Amino acid sequence: MTKQSTFRVKLAEQPANTDPVLTTLASTTQRNQADDVSKRLIELRDWLADDLYDLEVDLGSVVTDPGKDLAWKAVQYLLHKAGKRVRPICTLLAARMGERAFDEDVKQVAIAAELVHSATLLHDDVIDQGEERRGHPTARMVYGNSASVLGGDHLLVDALRRVNGADPRLVSSLLDVISQMVHAEALQLDMRNCFRPDRGLYQEVVHGKTAALFQWALEAGALLGDLNERQINLLSDVGINLGMTFQLVDDKLDLCGDPTETGKDTCLDLREGKLTWPMILAAERSPELLLRLRQYASAVDEPTQSDAKSLVEAIAATGAIEATHERAADFADKALKSLRQLPDGPSRSALKAVIHTALERSR
Amino acid sequence: MTKQSTFRVKLAEQPANTDPVLTTLASTTQRNQADDVSKRLIELRDWLADDLYDLEVDLGSVVTDPGKDLAWKAVQYLLHKAGKRVRPICTLLAARMGERAFDEDVKQVAIAAELVHSATLLHDDVIDQGEERRGHPTARMVYGNSASVLGGDHLLVDALRRVNGADPRLVSSLLDVISQMVHAEALQLDMRNCFRPDRGLYQEVVHGKTAALFQWALEAGALLGDLNERQINLLSDVGINLGMTFQLVDDKLDLCGDPTETGKDTCLDLREGKLTWPMILAAERSPELLLRLRQYASAVDEPTQSDAKSLVEAIAATGAIEATHERAADFADKALKSLRQLPDGPSRSALKAVIHTALERSR
Repeated sequence: MTKQSTFRVKLAEQPANTDPVLTTLASTTQRNQADDVSKRLIELRDWLADDLYDLEVDLGSVVTDPGKDLAWKAVQYLLHKAGKRVRPICTLLAARMGERAFDEDVKQVAIAAELVHSATLLHDDVIDQGEERRGHPTARMVYGNSASVLGGDHLLVDALRRVNGADPRLVSSLLDVISQMVHAEALQLDMRNCFRPDRGLYQEVVHGKTAALFQWALEAGALLGDLNERQINLLSDVGINLGMTFQLVDDKLDLCGDPTETGKDTCLDLREGKLTWPMILAAERSPELLLRLRQYASAVDEPTQSDAKSLVEAIAATGAIEATHERAADFADKALKSLRQLPDGPSRSALKAVIHTALERSR
Repeated sequence: MTKQSTFRVKLAEQPANTDPVLTTLASTTQRNQADDVSKRLIELRDWLADDLYDLEVDLGSVVTDPGKDLAWKAVQYLLHKAGKRVRPICTLLAARMGERAFDEDVKQVAIAAELVHSATLLHDDVIDQGEERRGHPTARMVYGNSASVLGGDHLLVDALRRVNGADPRLVSSLLDVISQMVHAEALQLDMRNCFRPDRGLYQEVVHGKTAALFQWALEAGALLGDLNERQINLLSDVGINLGMTFQLVDDKLDLCGDPTETGKDTCLDLREGKLTWPMILAAERSPELLLRLRQYASAVDEPTQSDAKSLVEAIAATGAIEATHERAADFADKALKSLRQLPDGPSRSALKAVIHTALERSR
């Protein structure tokens, strides 16, 4: 059966979330007049159709047993809200660069990357008392904090099982990544009520909470694809820099994104006391803003929407939002530079598109 | 250096919690006039002194870096409240039965068993909103719910890392155990507000939350000690039955234990809506108690101490508390029966003492 016909057969039973990634990315880049990227994404979508379909089917069946407990229901609820699936796509593209098909082992490792990400979302929402994610109430609002904590535990175990089954060499590095993610979240917790515009601290948090898992997703794919050491290291660099790009754009969207697209309120990071790059820049550039941000962080009552709006305007006036975008672009350039040293082909093109989209996305 | 002199040298720098287990066990059994057991425990304490010392030193250094985050502080707080350390003792005794010394790998696996147990305590206290444990405020009361959630995550990762480093064959079974523990906790959560005196459900919860980890601790030690398959299976049986004994005695102590010894309030399980064996028996024996327990579970307000006291008296009047002790004794007998088929020697004697103490303990 050819690839095309497999895809057609599958379309009839397509799960709701199939292929949310490249379609979304394509429309985002179209809106941003990045026509080249958009065109390339549409070509890639056809090339990757089967892989993406398999990925979504498997993610949809992480929770299948209706007798499963309340914690699994919280998991199912989160997984059914379509994410961008960028991490598993990184794994599959790295494996394909080594000309390894999206076979069962690669798929399991790719899914594990998404599940670890999902586990941290469940735990983070409990910690941050988050009320909305992906445009819907968070799992903890529907199933309670306890179910979300246990749901996150279920997912961590499930991810590790898949990786241990697919390739036990990857267990140790995945444990390191989870450890860094937990540490980053704990650092954020530590500084919740005191605004500390510290670049080093920011770097440590962002590396742990975002870049480490992107790095692992690409490295793991490269290892499974039998790439050589130099190539694995290059993909590792791509991962770190892509992760930094991703986070800096998140920081920017928190202040100036459209909530109907991002699926979360504006200024949520600000209100949750998270340190973001535009806040650091604004505090460095304006002593008055430093004071306001400090007061904001230590306030007992949650600031109003209009307080937040006035603060965003003041931050924007310092040029911090553009500067954050420029910094994201610098990391994207670094990622592209490492990427160019890897073998040319459809995987490299696809990763290039992923990097462009991470930078230009509006959700 | 002989064992005795090593011990003397070490005494000078002995950590606070050294050897809480056998000393406590010995005093418990003395009080219960189990003089034979008590005498044997004191002999064993000498035999195991070095192992127990090493175990406590390592548990004390799980968290050493003062720069570690708030979540690690919650972990440190819990680990410094001396637990009974029964699970790691099981691992070291099983390994010693195979004549494997308490070397670095055995120690790491033993510590992992304690850390997985500790991780679930941190998460459970958040879920149950527990206020006291081991006679002190819970970690979440001191460091907050979020630090406890992340602290539990840190410990799960740390335990898995140690096991992966010591013997990667054990990773898969430990993941299964953690998964069962999370599932059991989620089942308890599901039934929090409705009293369902279902023996099958009870069995599933207790197997997951207690017996599975005892089983793993013994099996893992047996595997490291190179015992043969039949012996590993026998120790696995010992673990399940010891775990059941342990939990049934916990159920009993919840109703009639001395809070100054158990380190937690009487009737805590009852107030937290947990299903225990004496409650099931009482509900089976008295339709009036079934109704009262149902009302109790669905009550919006937390029941008063005097409500709880009157309920305990009514449960006791059905003979459910004695019957729970008898059931615990039956499981202890099963554990002893499997144990008798294993090679005689100091490890077997020590495990026998552990089983007796699990049954006769008052804390």
